[in-house]
Amino acid sequence: MSKSLSLYVVKVGGAVLEQEADRKSFLADFAAASSQKVLVHGGGRRATSVAKALDVEAPMVNGRRITNDEMLEVAMMVYGGLMNKGLVAELQSLGCNALGMTGADGNLIEAHKRPVRDGIDYGWAGDVDQVNADFLSTLLSGGITPVLAPLTHDREGQMLNTNADTIANEVAIGLSGQLKVHLIYLFEQPGVMEDLSDEKSIIRHLNPSGYQVLKSNDKIHSGMIPKLDNAFLALDRGVSSVRIGRFDRLAEIMSPTSDEYTLIQSA
Amino acid sequence: MSKSLSLYVVKVGGAVLEQEADRKSFLADFAAASSQKVLVHGGGRRATSVAKALDVEAPMVNGRRITNDEMLEVAMMVYGGLMNKGLVAELQSLGCNALGMTGADGNLIEAHKRPVRDGIDYGWAGDVDQVNADFLSTLLSGGITPVLAPLTHDREGQMLNTNADTIANEVAIGLSGQLKVHLIYLFEQPGVMEDLSDEKSIIRHLNPSGYQVLKSNDKIHSGMIPKLDNAFLALDRGVSSVRIGRFDRLAEIMSPTSDEYTLIQSA
Repeated sequence: MSKSLSLYVVKVGGAVLEQEADRKSFLADFAAASSQKVLVHGGGRRATSVAKALDVEAPMVNGRRITNDEMLEVAMMVYGGLMNKGLVAELQSLGCNALGMTGADGNLIEAHKRPVRDGIDYGWAGDVDQVNADFLSTLLSGGITPVLAPLTHDREGQMLNTNADTIANEVAIGLSGQLKVHLIYLFEQPGVMEDLSDEKSIIRHLNPSGYQVLKSNDKIHSGMIPKLDNAFLALDRGVSSVRIGRFDRLAEIMSPTSDEYTLIQSA
Repeated sequence: MSKSLSLYVVKVGGAVLEQEADRKSFLADFAAASSQKVLVHGGGRRATSVAKALDVEAPMVNGRRITNDEMLEVAMMVYGGLMNKGLVAELQSLGCNALGMTGADGNLIEAHKRPVRDGIDYGWAGDVDQVNADFLSTLLSGGITPVLAPLTHDREGQMLNTNADTIANEVAIGLSGQLKVHLIYLFEQPGVMEDLSDEKSIIRHLNPSGYQVLKSNDKIHSGMIPKLDNAFLALDRGVSSVRIGRFDRLAEIMSPTSDEYTLIQSA
């Protein structure tokens, strides 16, 4: 199959979307992009405040939140309902024919409960098994822009909480058999930086060998390492490029001539 | 266009879905039905308990709840998230390729904020303007079973709370140009009854003239009148039949030989 059509899979964090001005700025650019596109949104802090108001306490183990029954319900309410539908309505008002989904909808993303590791049961956390790329591709061809919440299912009736970065990665990989896929991670920084306090230290291009050198010299912030490891994995599995940049620079990040972001390539 | 294909639009109330045994019984029958089908679900009491836990008070005017900003968020969370995604995951486990949507998704149902009437502002309550029947029909042809939450949007970024009976009616009417549509309302009773305390008093067939006679003799329970008025309206606007029956009798209600429900026809 020819891969002449480009698809942009854009992941944006919940924190950005919870700031009205930031969200509006991002959504205007996202809606204006004429390519086929998928939006994957993170969770954000609202789930924490709703959980607190509902007297739901999620146990933490080794600094990681465990998704118990009650927290899963909060995630379904806040990510799958409030945030997802709010984004869809806003995108519709901007002329973008958005369709909000979780991994259960149209059996889009099958996952399994994360196995107990080192005695830690993460609860209803889902690790992805497969993406229904054909259905996504049919929707995209029909002019639909899927908006994905960070939730999957196990095909046995159980919803699962799944990291939004993982969903973006898996969807990008899943569609790369049919389309030329660019995966874009948006956050508060202009890109991957050697020094977080200096915007000029942005790394404009990163390939596997450069990444290894920077990593061994401790030039990559530890929080960025899982994202970058996943980015290189996505490139290995067929994604054409991964771009990391600021949430209010989407138009530039989608442009081939701009370099206001970090471009990650396999060579 | 030939209307050889039948579609069943099934509306079930939130109260039924909140009882696990009732929900499972209903979903098993719904999933097993081989025709094209759409599920429309009501809200249920969970929204009230979530609202209470979140200290959200929805003002009541003339016995009707007003959808203020906070109640709309609760509706988006509980109807659009918790209930809708829970139903989708359960249907997927039963082999039914469900896709949960609100009226904002794929611009499925456009509505407008209900105008102030007699000085009463109902808040974010939506009256339906139009149903995107082409998109629904495309999904149905692709083997998808839409599962609709009682929420619509105004295309200007505003989600709206919309009665599930109204959504079922409008969707049935909207699709009746392309398909032979049967609209089924499920609730706790076996059908429309002359005497609520006597199941044998079920009215098996109802046409407009019979309805007028029963109504003028006070044989129709007042709570049933808006549903029946809407049912006859749906028949006038192209729906083939409207059937009202018990939530655990769906298989019988979909069968042409059974009479364990109230069949409403235009003549």
